Amino acid sequence: MKHTISVLVENKPGVLTRISTLFAARGYNIDSLAVGETDDPTVSRMTIVVAGDEAILEQVKKQLNKLIDVIKVSDFLNVAHVERDLILIKVRADKSVRNEILQIVDIFRAKIVDVSANTVIIEMTGDEDKIQALINMLKPFGIKEMARTGIIAMARGG
Amino acid sequence: MKHTISVLVENKPGVLTRISTLFAARGYNIDSLAVGETDDPTVSRMTIVVAGDEAILEQVKKQLNKLIDVIKVSDFLNVAHVERDLILIKVRADKSVRNEILQIVDIFRAKIVDVSANTVIIEMTGDEDKIQALINMLKPFGIKEMARTGIIAMARGG
Repeated sequence: MKHTISVLVENKPGVLTRISTLFAARGYNIDSLAVGETDDPTVSRMTIVVAGDEAILEQVKKQLNKLIDVIKVSDFLNVAHVERDLILIKVRADKSVRNEILQIVDIFRAKIVDVSANTVIIEMTGDEDKIQALINMLKPFGIKEMARTGIIAMARGG
Repeated sequence: MKHTISVLVENKPGVLTRISTLFAARGYNIDSLAVGETDDPTVSRMTIVVAGDEAILEQVKKQLNKLIDVIKVSDFLNVAHVERDLILIKVRADKSVRNEILQIVDIFRAKIVDVSANTVIIEMTGDEDKIQALINMLKPFGIKEMARTGIIAMARGG
């Protein structure tokens, strides 16, 4: 099972190393990691997706809370929340298939953000399932390149 | 000046630690980091935004290329490319201001992904400038929470 953990940390050099060392030393498998700014420039938010059971999740949270630069750790277990990942995907698309690709983009409410004679770049946000479904639909055309941000998450409601 | 670096790495435990150690040891300041899957499950792509001049960028690339788990390092200096960051932002929004917020969401072609009696969660993708502009417009209403993925990038064209 995959768990999403949100960690507020001091925005200092070395924090990322301490956190990634913690995960590596204990053999926890990080599926994705996103580190972005918050509205406070001294604070960053890391969103980590880790595979394992609930016991693993509890261990990870306990270890993270021990780190001096960690301000707050939250998970989204049993919490109604929004999860979003962003993907850029460059697909082979000459004239003969461009229409078909545009249809797929439309169905997924994705966006074309670049086009050349033989390729398009598609941008889409969604949860893991939606993004995987898009990848599956585009694979037959030939995926030239793909970049994903990893998940960020937020609890619903006030 | 900010530089965006894209690094293809073996998807193994410890790789993130080696890379973050490299940055921390040399005092390079990471502005954002996104680690996501590629279409090959054994390979991940890290997108790192680092501040500094071109000499720093060259040093970072050289050091990264020495790491055993690094498959390919590219930067986007003088390359036409697309950059995208994803933000989720929870804003105070009772009935009296909801319309005004909806207008802003509309202008930025952002999306409302959750609503409660007193808040909304807004999702938007864009480059740094666009995201900063959205944050500035929403600040007066009261930002309750904010999560960003950090930038991913892709060269334009075939």
